[in-house]
Amino acid sequence: LAKVDRAERTDDARGELAARYDAVRAATLALTAALSAEDQMVQSMADVSPTKWHLAHTAWFFETFLLTPRLADYRAFDPAFAYLFNSYYEAAGERHPRPARGLLSRPGLDRVLAYRAHVDAAMALLLAGCAATDRDEMAALVELGLNHEQQHQELILSDIKHVFWTNPLRPAYRPPAPRAAHAGRPAAWIRIPGGLVQIGAQGDGFAFDNEGPRHKVWLESFSISDRLVTCGEWLEFVEDGGYRRPEFWLSDGWAAVQREGWTAPLYWTEEDEGDWSLFSLTGTRPLDPREPVCHVSFYEADAFARWAGKRLPTEAEWEVAAQAAALGEEHFGLHPAPAGAEAGLRQLAGQVWQWTASPYVSYPGYRAPDGALGEYNGKFMANQMVLRGGACTTPPGHARPTYRNFYPPAARWMFGGLRLADA
Amino acid sequence: LAKVDRAERTDDARGELAARYDAVRAATLALTAALSAEDQMVQSMADVSPTKWHLAHTAWFFETFLLTPRLADYRAFDPAFAYLFNSYYEAAGERHPRPARGLLSRPGLDRVLAYRAHVDAAMALLLAGCAATDRDEMAALVELGLNHEQQHQELILSDIKHVFWTNPLRPAYRPPAPRAAHAGRPAAWIRIPGGLVQIGAQGDGFAFDNEGPRHKVWLESFSISDRLVTCGEWLEFVEDGGYRRPEFWLSDGWAAVQREGWTAPLYWTEEDEGDWSLFSLTGTRPLDPREPVCHVSFYEADAFARWAGKRLPTEAEWEVAAQAAALGEEHFGLHPAPAGAEAGLRQLAGQVWQWTASPYVSYPGYRAPDGALGEYNGKFMANQMVLRGGACTTPPGHARPTYRNFYPPAARWMFGGLRLADA
Amino acid sequence: LAKVDRAERTDDARGELAARYDAVRAATLALTAALSAEDQMVQSMADVSPTKWHLAHTAWFFETFLLTPRLADYRAFDPAFAYLFNSYYEAAGERHPRPARGLLSRPGLDRVLAYRAHVDAAMALLLAGCAATDRDEMAALVELGLNHEQQHQELILSDIKHVFWTNPLRPAYRPPAPRAAHAGRPAAWIRIPGGLVQIGAQGDGFAFDNEGPRHKVWLESFSISDRLVTCGEWLEFVEDGGYRRPEFWLSDGWAAVQREGWTAPLYWTEEDEGDWSLFSLTGTRPLDPREPVCHVSFYEADAFARWAGKRLPTEAEWEVAAQAAALGEEHFGLHPAPAGAEAGLRQLAGQVWQWTASPYVSYPGYRAPDGALGEYNGKFMANQMVLRGGACTTPPGHARPTYRNFYPPAARWMFGGLRLADA
Amino acid sequence: LAKVDRAERTDDARGELAARYDAVRAATLALTAALSAEDQMVQSMADVSPTKWHLAHTAWFFETFLLTPRLADYRAFDPAFAYLFNSYYEAAGERHPRPARGLLSRPGLDRVLAYRAHVDAAMALLLAGCAATDRDEMAALVELGLNHEQQHQELILSDIKHVFWTNPLRPAYRPPAPRAAHAGRPAAWIRIPGGLVQIGAQGDGFAFDNEGPRHKVWLESFSISDRLVTCGEWLEFVEDGGYRRPEFWLSDGWAAVQREGWTAPLYWTEEDEGDWSLFSLTGTRPLDPREPVCHVSFYEADAFARWAGKRLPTEAEWEVAAQAAALGEEHFGLHPAPAGAEAGLRQLAGQVWQWTASPYVSYPGYRAPDGALGEYNGKFMANQMVLRGGACTTPPGHARPTYRNFYPPAARWMFGGLRLADA
Repeated sequence: LAKVDRAERTDDARGELAARYDAVRAATLALTAALSAEDQMVQSMADVSPTKWHLAHTAWFFETFLLTPRLADYRAFDPAFAYLFNSYYEAAGERHPRPARGLLSRPGLDRVLAYRAHVDAAMALLLAGCAATDRDEMAALVELGLNHEQQHQELILSDIKHVFWTNPLRPAYRPPAPRAAHAGRPAAWIRIPGGLVQIGAQGDGFAFDNEGPRHKVWLESFSISDRLVTCGEWLEFVEDGGYRRPEFWLSDGWAAVQREGWTAPLYWTEEDEGDWSLFSLTGTRPLDPREPVCHVSFYEADAFARWAGKRLPTEAEWEVAAQAAALGEEHFGLHPAPAGAEAGLRQLAGQVWQWTASPYVSYPGYRAPDGALGEYNGKFMANQMVLRGGACTTPPGHARPTYRNFYPPAARWMFGGLRLADA
Repeated sequence: LAKVDRAERTDDARGELAARYDAVRAATLALTAALSAEDQMVQSMADVSPTKWHLAHTAWFFETFLLTPRLADYRAFDPAFAYLFNSYYEAAGERHPRPARGLLSRPGLDRVLAYRAHVDAAMALLLAGCAATDRDEMAALVELGLNHEQQHQELILSDIKHVFWTNPLRPAYRPPAPRAAHAGRPAAWIRIPGGLVQIGAQGDGFAFDNEGPRHKVWLESFSISDRLVTCGEWLEFVEDGGYRRPEFWLSDGWAAVQREGWTAPLYWTEEDEGDWSLFSLTGTRPLDPREPVCHVSFYEADAFARWAGKRLPTEAEWEVAAQAAALGEEHFGLHPAPAGAEAGLRQLAGQVWQWTASPYVSYPGYRAPDGALGEYNGKFMANQMVLRGGACTTPPGHARPTYRNFYPPAARWMFGGLRLADA
Repeated sequence: LAKVDRAERTDDARGELAARYDAVRAATLALTAALSAEDQMVQSMADVSPTKWHLAHTAWFFETFLLTPRLADYRAFDPAFAYLFNSYYEAAGERHPRPARGLLSRPGLDRVLAYRAHVDAAMALLLAGCAATDRDEMAALVELGLNHEQQHQELILSDIKHVFWTNPLRPAYRPPAPRAAHAGRPAAWIRIPGGLVQIGAQGDGFAFDNEGPRHKVWLESFSISDRLVTCGEWLEFVEDGGYRRPEFWLSDGWAAVQREGWTAPLYWTEEDEGDWSLFSLTGTRPLDPREPVCHVSFYEADAFARWAGKRLPTEAEWEVAAQAAALGEEHFGLHPAPAGAEAGLRQLAGQVWQWTASPYVSYPGYRAPDGALGEYNGKFMANQMVLRGGACTTPPGHARPTYRNFYPPAARWMFGGLRLADA
Repeated sequence: LAKVDRAERTDDARGELAARYDAVRAATLALTAALSAEDQMVQSMADVSPTKWHLAHTAWFFETFLLTPRLADYRAFDPAFAYLFNSYYEAAGERHPRPARGLLSRPGLDRVLAYRAHVDAAMALLLAGCAATDRDEMAALVELGLNHEQQHQELILSDIKHVFWTNPLRPAYRPPAPRAAHAGRPAAWIRIPGGLVQIGAQGDGFAFDNEGPRHKVWLESFSISDRLVTCGEWLEFVEDGGYRRPEFWLSDGWAAVQREGWTAPLYWTEEDEGDWSLFSLTGTRPLDPREPVCHVSFYEADAFARWAGKRLPTEAEWEVAAQAAALGEEHFGLHPAPAGAEAGLRQLAGQVWQWTASPYVSYPGYRAPDGALGEYNGKFMANQMVLRGGACTTPPGHARPTYRNFYPPAARWMFGGLRLADA
């Protein structure tokens, strides 16, 4: 009887995982429905990948780490794809150079979609036939693959935004929808008491390897803003000469300002003196001062904080503050929205990734897993800064308070904003 | 009566021009029939333009230089296209940066085809309604536009060849066809007596401005090879260390060898020690030693000639030799073919463009026309070398003995080969 | 009486400061005695400054931050020097571009020495005439200037080493001297208990702003090697393919290996298969396996540690371990030396700067001082890693356990090595 | 008797050659007398070589091509110098990279002077002991070496001018001297009849290999200006928007204007709106509108000619015109001077090198000599333009009407100006 029960539970778990697999994979395709095969080919800079490449690479991930090692008689869809769609896994062999991803008219989109279908069919077999002994290990790998897929869902949106911005016609990804009616509100400070705290993921539910081990950190008491910095506040910084005054900037940040000619966040255009427009996934429209500022680099966020007489929180501060708050009021969509009127620490997730003062390094006791998947997070632990929270374009349910996103300090094309802290 | 006659002749001329217009424009589209919208977007290096861009730019040419100034009530298809599809005409205003041509998913191929149809329809109106007074001037402009279109037909093939070469899948533009059965033959020298000769175009039939004025040149007697240099001969150069011995090279050429890592012509691959394959528009196949060598730069052609103890002909020598020869035995297709057995100066046209020893400068008395069309040829008269003849991919009827093609001395992606000369 | 005492103590303090000023300034000149005016002009890469520039810049520092604001009637030696010898202080105005420092034949070395003499004379006046009310503030500034001068003393040696290495003649800065007789010894692990510890400078004696505030840190227990990694150990890494196996490397580190063609530490040359020489300030000689490895980047240190199955210590771990140890057995000279036989944590200072796992960021509560001197350390807190300890070329007495040196992770020309840690 | 005579004549010839050797070599040193060892080290851009390098390289030339092959028991001064001071002779072995010439503090200037003395002593032996059988061949080589030395004399001045310009202190090479009192005068056109002419050097007296063979050229009649273009005329071009209007420029020239930010000739500074100063070897002074314009590139010269409705002469036109003129009124010194009042074709030599419309290619029948000296001129016959005449800084007696100087079309740091031609 117990045996039957267990088998039933296994069946249920299998079914759940398969359903989740189908849902996540379908969500990816849904994001690309409005894009032509031509749109899906463009690589507007080396950091950006074509949509079609994202579609193929996420299939390659399941093929490489699940199907090839675990499904008997699995036959790779096309042996050339191992080379074409490996992103950065040295242990998985040679790969196509990243800056050349936009040159691949072949395989065409049709063939990439067939690749996804081939992988999905094989994954259905694998999930259905999985022996109980393998179940946990395989479920963990599938879960990793799905979280990986979700990261690429967000990248598809960040990347196509840059692609369309680069086109002088400035196409919209989707027609504009009615926008939030919130009036916005002044920021308030939340006081968080210091002490010996714990941060990091531990055990319950999926987390990336870089979120652990859970460990102790000593924090002094600090204050954190209850909402994100807004476009209106950023405009004051611009108008106060923020981009022309070196005293606010880190040395490397000031060099980036000069080299890149930054005078405002990415996607802002000064149409007339003092009159700014903003390009979003729904096209170009006037800047809304109530909205969270978005598409700023760490260097800009850090300079803004110094101009404001404040600082960025560390990732430990951010996590401790988030633990203490209700994470509600998330917003998802194609652009961040103004804060609502409710008191408390808001806009933690579902708006923009929030730059912290913390370089991205390993937690004490961290060791990257063996093999190619050990390259997933560990090898990037240099020259990047941690962002916390989650963006409006992050798939719902993907992020969590311990989540460590990371980008180089000059990166601006992802949805990055900031929240201030104070002593 | 004479008046009627004249009107009839005008009608005939109009009809002929319109028919020629239709034929040339249709030939362009025929070249792209086998290419997907994705294929037509790729720009594999800055020198290469996407097929779609060629389609749009050639329409822009008629729109800008014929329709807008000459067709009453003509309405531009899309005002943004003036910016997107201007190639290099400073006098025609600002334009999209050349290296970014491959980033334009919009306008999509469908819209570019609609643009061509729009322009074709308007051109039909213009050609039909043209007053007798304007006829000659307009016919000259149309003829220029059609020759321009033919140049882009050839570029479409050179460019897509590079695009497909850049793709690790190495797709073929067209399936392979049976190849020439000629056995090839040894080269022979043709002696051309010197003296005061005339070169350059004069009056009869279309010629580009840079082909004139016709003018006198003093030439000493010289010898010229009756056929092109072959892949077999080039292989001897390679195997004799041609690419490793600076004594054969111009200083800038040797620098290019080092910088680019050249060890053979473009599109050659050494599969095994001494065993070479060649990539063509019909895919990859073993090197054929009888074929004319192709896709070599001026620097390579010059070094080969020095290795062989010979030299390249000047453009005047080439033209004088060609005047004396029957131009027959042209070959058109997707790749040059071995010389046939007939005696005489062969392979002048329809095989490869032939590097000469002559820098591309103006002929005595040349003045560029006024206005934007004056930029067509004149402003490139620096840092380029003249090539003569015509390639297998040059549209039949496009080239002529006075034709001056020109490329920078390191360019290899067009169909460039060589013929030797001697004192 | 008390008043007299106080004045006497002031006089003594003044005298001590002036004597220390003279000693430090003279030590700088002593380092340059063997260098010709030509040697003192070379800038072998952008990171390196000419010796002459160091001599002038350190004078500029005293002129700008002490003499101009504080010495009545002080007249700048040459108004152009404010532009020529400002290193990176935005608040001190425009400055000569760093990569062009090697192009300045004028001012000649003679004139730079005259500049130093002019500044020294004025500083003597300032120190002698200093009012009691200003004393502490001025003494702090002088102390900062002297520590700044000492940092440049070390840079003079690092830089001239690179200059001479770049010269195909490979000159020696000084003739070789007899070297240490130590046999070297195996490493042993020292266990350091964890807990809530304090790190950072506080109050007693000079420290740079970035060494404070002193603050609490939670540490888990850890082990640290009692000596530095040696050349012999590094050679094993090289011979085990360390520079060819991406699995040991951070992603940015692996990119640096490829880009720079690293196959060994800077200044190593493989004379014959497996037979290595080392270039030092006393010329080229065979590699000594007992010596601490030196001139490795953070990326290399990190990869070595991963290869060895260990890790780098954090800066907090390093400092806590150093607090617990006797700092003795320092070694000064032109090259690090093998560890002696004594047990305990050795080679903490006076050998090589030791890469830590810690990115260079501000300590909690740190605020950069106002004004130009606030640029001294604070604005570099991005994209650099902390090194601890001190090099054989660091002036005796300059470093201390809280000292935070910092360099970009790819830098190798300073004296950087490593010590391993373990869980 | 005849034998004695012959021996005497040989002695005389030997003596003359030795005297000429001494004079030319001494003239080189005289140019450097006012420069410090530091001045003589600077390489302000890759095109520029340090003075010290010129001193050593010209000694290397005699050592490599005369002493080593021809003087029994000659011992090279320093074997490392073969590597350090070879300029570009592939056949003479590996060499130090050109852009790193400014990094060589060692050998110091003293040692380079000793090298020159060593070579001079050995050359005296060689010249004294030369057997009659070798005489002509050796005399030809010595003559080549002396002409080579004179080319470097001119380069020493062009290069140190750029070195001092790069230094913010803008030192003068020599104090200013009183300047020409000429009032300048309007240009007049000289008509030169066309026909079958001969150009090129033949037989009598030294000439470089690239000046021959003498050969026939057909020329149409043309006009040439009797004087050089002046700074005053150039200023009109500047003020008419010459540097902002693409219609005057070759495509590559316009790209250079944008890339380099050219708004005037090199060494011009707009101190105030419309008020220009000029930097010369005697320091900075107001622009003199009567002087020949200098330090313009071919691209600028060509654009100026087009703006003026004229053109540059070809090198054949220039040479034919010069053959017909008296070459008198040469001017030597550190800067070109206004034309005098005398009628006729003036300012042919001794003022500035004059850009022609002719790319630098071989004359018909030219073959580079065998061996390393074949690299002297031949391998540069690509991507350069011919300049004719001679500069104020060209040593008297060095140039002649057949002399072909050549530089890349964007080069401006040598003394290059222009003279106009017309149909």
